[in-house]
Amino acid sequence: MKFIIQRDYLVQSVQDVMKAVSSRTTVPILTGIKIVAHTEGVTLTGSDSDISIESFIPAEENEKEIVEIHQTGSVVLQAKFFSEIVKKLPKEIVEIEVGNHYSTVIRSGKAEFNLNGQDAEEYPHLPQIEEENIYKMPTDLIKAMIRQTVFAVSTSETRPILTGVNWKLENGELVCIATDSHRLALRKAPIHSHQNGSYNVVIPGKSLSELSKILDDTNEPVEIVFTESQVLFKAKNLLFFSRLLDGNYPDTSRLIPADSKTNLTLNSKDFLQAIDRASLLAKEARNNVVKLSTLTNSMIEISSNSPEIGKVSEEIQAEEVEGEELKISFSAKYVMDALKALEGTEINVNFTGAMRPFVIRTTTDDSMLQLILPVRTY
Amino acid sequence: MKFIIQRDYLVQSVQDVMKAVSSRTTVPILTGIKIVAHTEGVTLTGSDSDISIESFIPAEENEKEIVEIHQTGSVVLQAKFFSEIVKKLPKEIVEIEVGNHYSTVIRSGKAEFNLNGQDAEEYPHLPQIEEENIYKMPTDLIKAMIRQTVFAVSTSETRPILTGVNWKLENGELVCIATDSHRLALRKAPIHSHQNGSYNVVIPGKSLSELSKILDDTNEPVEIVFTESQVLFKAKNLLFFSRLLDGNYPDTSRLIPADSKTNLTLNSKDFLQAIDRASLLAKEARNNVVKLSTLTNSMIEISSNSPEIGKVSEEIQAEEVEGEELKISFSAKYVMDALKALEGTEINVNFTGAMRPFVIRTTTDDSMLQLILPVRTY
Repeated sequence: MKFIIQRDYLVQSVQDVMKAVSSRTTVPILTGIKIVAHTEGVTLTGSDSDISIESFIPAEENEKEIVEIHQTGSVVLQAKFFSEIVKKLPKEIVEIEVGNHYSTVIRSGKAEFNLNGQDAEEYPHLPQIEEENIYKMPTDLIKAMIRQTVFAVSTSETRPILTGVNWKLENGELVCIATDSHRLALRKAPIHSHQNGSYNVVIPGKSLSELSKILDDTNEPVEIVFTESQVLFKAKNLLFFSRLLDGNYPDTSRLIPADSKTNLTLNSKDFLQAIDRASLLAKEARNNVVKLSTLTNSMIEISSNSPEIGKVSEEIQAEEVEGEELKISFSAKYVMDALKALEGTEINVNFTGAMRPFVIRTTTDDSMLQLILPVRTY
Repeated sequence: MKFIIQRDYLVQSVQDVMKAVSSRTTVPILTGIKIVAHTEGVTLTGSDSDISIESFIPAEENEKEIVEIHQTGSVVLQAKFFSEIVKKLPKEIVEIEVGNHYSTVIRSGKAEFNLNGQDAEEYPHLPQIEEENIYKMPTDLIKAMIRQTVFAVSTSETRPILTGVNWKLENGELVCIATDSHRLALRKAPIHSHQNGSYNVVIPGKSLSELSKILDDTNEPVEIVFTESQVLFKAKNLLFFSRLLDGNYPDTSRLIPADSKTNLTLNSKDFLQAIDRASLLAKEARNNVVKLSTLTNSMIEISSNSPEIGKVSEEIQAEEVEGEELKISFSAKYVMDALKALEGTEINVNFTGAMRPFVIRTTTDDSMLQLILPVRTY
């Protein structure tokens, strides 16, 4: 294998596949990046078994030569060193050549690296996915759907299925749901497909976070293909594979209350900042619990009390307070996470009593909701 | 105590004194910030016994009112909570009032915090320093002298005196020296004083790092006062006290070779980047050692070899190579630290053999030098 490549394309591509490479793997060759030079260009692959990423650097793009292939072939190089090296190469042009025993020379300007490589045949094959049912969604919409749900997945392995996000596709709609059993995030959006199939899968939260980092902020469509055990996302010059989680995701629809007894309409930023301030003293007490009380004249009070440190209270003018009086305690962190995810300026909060889950929505967009379980403090 | 203050001044002042506050202290009250309101303004103090910082907020500055004192007095508030709170207050104006049992109310807009305070009389007194011998130096020069030496102090407590920087004042000159016994950094500069005294003290590296962070980038003079056990830096509205280290600093003057056998003149950036690249593979082998060899035609080679990973070599065109041929090994980190500290574009490196310390200077400024001990690899 021998090729000459534009450094910046190589750096970007290595950075992308590195998102799948883990130093803590039980399969030693997966600490490497697979490099394949073929006549159309160079393909890099990184994988940690759960996530696999393939990045393609075309020989030519927009009539500009990016890679000059002198000899096709392949090698696996230690990801950690290879990625550090390409970032720090002195010149715009890089030559990579594999010699005897996979010993690989990386040349740029007067700098010459020799890295011990491995046989690419030893590298696990990526899953073969038959592209029967292809769904399409704009890149920025996928990123928004991930951002607005993935933070709510469980970080505990007690119920592994809750470490993933539930993706349900039916009737041209995608519904994403994440819950750690203390709070739930839901976002839905239309999705495009030529088929009428339906899917109900659970994608590991970590996979979605990595996917989100690797996707550009464009509205170009991403293709999505599901199989029994894998999901594949196809963007320009990029394949992103993730395994799916085994098991059935709990039915969350009955968790969302249909009616409410107290309804607030208020400015999201005011609410967020008041909770943030109240949580300053609550954080220390570990539970991070703050209290909300309705007052008269559409005022609400956010407060917190940590006897050893002190206490804090703040009044906020709501735009509307409707229904029964209420005193309720909740995790400041969960409500702040939810408000940040909603990204709205004006929000509705619907309560059905101090012991029941409450729902936060923006006043303008009903495609997303955040549900939070209160904390019992009485 | 009761006063009303501009939040931004309070935030800056709290941030400054926080640099001296440690959560790991054996004196519980030092986890707090002392606040004193007097007729001229408000004084904040933070201390960890080694470093003490006093920041003064004047009642009025440039005919603008900053603090409105309603009642003089004092209190000590938990630094961690107080500093978080002031940063997140909703309005520009803050009211602070001490009530019964040092319970302190912090009000801003509709947010009201109650913090349990402590009696300021319990707070240790700052050292009393008689201002007999006052030295003066521009702020930016002090910061440069610290930056160019403090990185070379020892991080090991085996020889505690080496964790400090040796400051020698004599004949209107300040010489700063730091060494961890593997490398040495030296910087000198003229210093202004009306007296003819001389001082030879050792200031903890940590104190100087914190001082450097807290000083602005101006050329306003800072006053420096030494006593037996303390040094005081006085800047505008700021007092910075540090204890001095006990013991005699080793005489380092005999370490610096007077003659040399091989002399290089080369571009600092080229040299730094080649060493950086060579160290990519050397880092793994823990010792981070790279090798320099002189070649013909004023070329030098930087190389490194880690049998399990690979090897790297790079040739650099020096501006001049003069004297004996040389092969020498050294810590990539130490040489990179030294080159960054020198901040020069063109440097001289003077060697007296593969086993002897070598010296790096810029070609334009002889007020600073960096000395490095080689690593024996043969």
